[in-house]
Amino acid sequence: MRAEILSIGTELLLGQIIDTNAAYIAERLAEAGLSLYFKDTVGDNMERLVATLRLAASRAEVIICTGGLGPTADDITAEGIAIAFDAPLEMNEVAKSGIENLFRSRGRPFTDRQFKQAMMPQGAIMVPNPVGTAPGFILNKDGITVVALPGPPQEMQPMWLQTVGHYLSGLSGAIIYSRTLRFCGIGESVLEAHLEDLMAGTNPTVAPYAKLAEVHLRLTARASSVEEAQAMIAPVEAEIRQREGWHLYGIDEETLELVVGRMLRERSLTLAVAESCTGGLLGGRLTGVPGSSDYFLGGVISYANRLKEDLLGVRAATLAADGAVSEATAREMAEGARQRCGAQLAVSITGIAGPDGGTDEKPVGLVYLGLARDGVETRVVRHLFWGDRVTVRARAVQEALVMLRAELLALEASA
Amino acid sequence: MRAEILSIGTELLLGQIIDTNAAYIAERLAEAGLSLYFKDTVGDNMERLVATLRLAASRAEVIICTGGLGPTADDITAEGIAIAFDAPLEMNEVAKSGIENLFRSRGRPFTDRQFKQAMMPQGAIMVPNPVGTAPGFILNKDGITVVALPGPPQEMQPMWLQTVGHYLSGLSGAIIYSRTLRFCGIGESVLEAHLEDLMAGTNPTVAPYAKLAEVHLRLTARASSVEEAQAMIAPVEAEIRQREGWHLYGIDEETLELVVGRMLRERSLTLAVAESCTGGLLGGRLTGVPGSSDYFLGGVISYANRLKEDLLGVRAATLAADGAVSEATAREMAEGARQRCGAQLAVSITGIAGPDGGTDEKPVGLVYLGLARDGVETRVVRHLFWGDRVTVRARAVQEALVMLRAELLALEASA
Repeated sequence: MRAEILSIGTELLLGQIIDTNAAYIAERLAEAGLSLYFKDTVGDNMERLVATLRLAASRAEVIICTGGLGPTADDITAEGIAIAFDAPLEMNEVAKSGIENLFRSRGRPFTDRQFKQAMMPQGAIMVPNPVGTAPGFILNKDGITVVALPGPPQEMQPMWLQTVGHYLSGLSGAIIYSRTLRFCGIGESVLEAHLEDLMAGTNPTVAPYAKLAEVHLRLTARASSVEEAQAMIAPVEAEIRQREGWHLYGIDEETLELVVGRMLRERSLTLAVAESCTGGLLGGRLTGVPGSSDYFLGGVISYANRLKEDLLGVRAATLAADGAVSEATAREMAEGARQRCGAQLAVSITGIAGPDGGTDEKPVGLVYLGLARDGVETRVVRHLFWGDRVTVRARAVQEALVMLRAELLALEASA
Repeated sequence: MRAEILSIGTELLLGQIIDTNAAYIAERLAEAGLSLYFKDTVGDNMERLVATLRLAASRAEVIICTGGLGPTADDITAEGIAIAFDAPLEMNEVAKSGIENLFRSRGRPFTDRQFKQAMMPQGAIMVPNPVGTAPGFILNKDGITVVALPGPPQEMQPMWLQTVGHYLSGLSGAIIYSRTLRFCGIGESVLEAHLEDLMAGTNPTVAPYAKLAEVHLRLTARASSVEEAQAMIAPVEAEIRQREGWHLYGIDEETLELVVGRMLRERSLTLAVAESCTGGLLGGRLTGVPGSSDYFLGGVISYANRLKEDLLGVRAATLAADGAVSEATAREMAEGARQRCGAQLAVSITGIAGPDGGTDEKPVGLVYLGLARDGVETRVVRHLFWGDRVTVRARAVQEALVMLRAELLALEASA
């Protein structure tokens, strides 16, 4: 079945917003096994909208429209579809009372203009909007399925997940199920080389997505039920787990800081940080997790050398002999943070983020990560990261979390 | 003059990448005064590419193509343009030797396949690519101007800025000049209400862009020279400065942390931080500025109450009586950070970022910001931010920087 996406709105043609809906929908259509040959964008102009709808109907069986469903005069999508498909607009009473109730419950005044959003082409099925006021609709006419959804992604996406996706699955007789595996400590190209055979599969598909300092794999199966799809994914995931071992750290929305935090909580361990070149970014990521106060105590941002001495107890002799970016300083920073914060574990970061401050001996991108644990010798790892200041700092934070996770895994294994 | 954008690449139809090029180009075309009625996306399929090029030529005078200029078999843009506009491909010798030199200088092996990127429609003008291997081209044929650029934004954008933008300005006889004014401490709707008359202008245009916790205004003039454009923008900018006063904090790429840092450096002041609910995000932003070690000393992430006492000297009695999220704690945190870090200024943040931990008395979003300065009484400001955990924390950091800037402005005024 061929599909076509039509994004509607003059703001898209002025470049004021980036059309992320089109990519979102394209990905969902691909998963559903629909072929997408064209995506089009038109402004709020009736003549051009109707012409583009007719063009789309000449080359696709499913047309997905986004945008132009609001109450103002330049919202013309419903009327355009009505004209192009000869299905005059009529009031959808369910949509009308839904809009009325929404405004009433929020205590907001509403004008008759709002009811414009309840006008739909004759025979259309309403698509509920759980977030905003504008419902969408699905029209089947002359063998063509036209879907109309509002433009804001925070409204369009839940409507797709709750209604439209299932409807299209029904048309194609398939459901789509996805699972994202998250990896750390391994690059995209290495992972691709390991899994080339699995990535060649078409159902389930295995697709890599490179993020800053980590890689995600999305496994997607098309089947007649969720259970069937899960059963198709399970052996592929098991094979990937077998090949990649500890590099797989989380599933779907699990971030590295969430996974590390969970391990700390499970073992009743507390954590402190000592940050130099990252200036607080590691603490910022750790505390991005709700409930992180269960295990994260805090720490010291020791940007100036004097604070490395005063707040962390790094020895002046160490700083003088080895410098602030050195194995010895990273060690003393981690140990100082652990002791002064009274934590069982502490991580330190000291490095040269650039663009200035690098030398032949200590180039930009050189970062030392220290890990102190109660009762064992402190470990320090040296990294040389490639990239600009933003990238070097982000990678340093990421590798600090990877190091912490490795330590917690080892603790678990030895327990 | 009417323009049309054509994005080429199957990866766009699979939703694997978001088409940010289209929005970038749309914005540049709008600034250049070209009308954009349609944007289209097609995959790497010759029949559909040629059909779409012919459709575009039937309704626009300028067609901008991105993507499909690489060396592999599925890169078909040049050939598609050659077919659609009856301008057979031929080797562009300048492009050829450029590619040859690039590979040689990088010591990389190259195959004849690379020369495919030097094949251009007869009569096309080469567009140099300062970043990658694939040059672009501009073809004028039958009253239509076709521009072909590579897909990666980091290649496309400099090619636009260096060559294509000027070429199109030449066609339309205009140059485009933009300047972004950055505001803090004022919302988009208030700014729009203040500047409604100026925003109604068409040359220069004044367009607002809401960012997380700040607003930018982009002033764009179309003129026959940069000097003329600057002269058109100057009185509008002066009027905006007059109306908005201290809310205007920076120009173009100047971030709030950069501006605050510059003020600290100019006055030879040093800064420390004490962060609770933001966990290091303020330190992270401050140290994102290269050279911030000139004025930023560091600070304490006092997530646990015990660290507020041990590392900052907040009194146990204060925590017991007023709680960690209180005016008194914010005050003692700022003063403790200032003294223990030996800084002239210190900023503290303590609040409830959510989603849990809120009460009727102290709801989620409640944040106290403290500012301690050598020799004067510490100030504390209470905020109630709306939004999720990410938003509350980002706004807290932003308002801490706004508070710091206000203090530095006041110091300047009293000096």
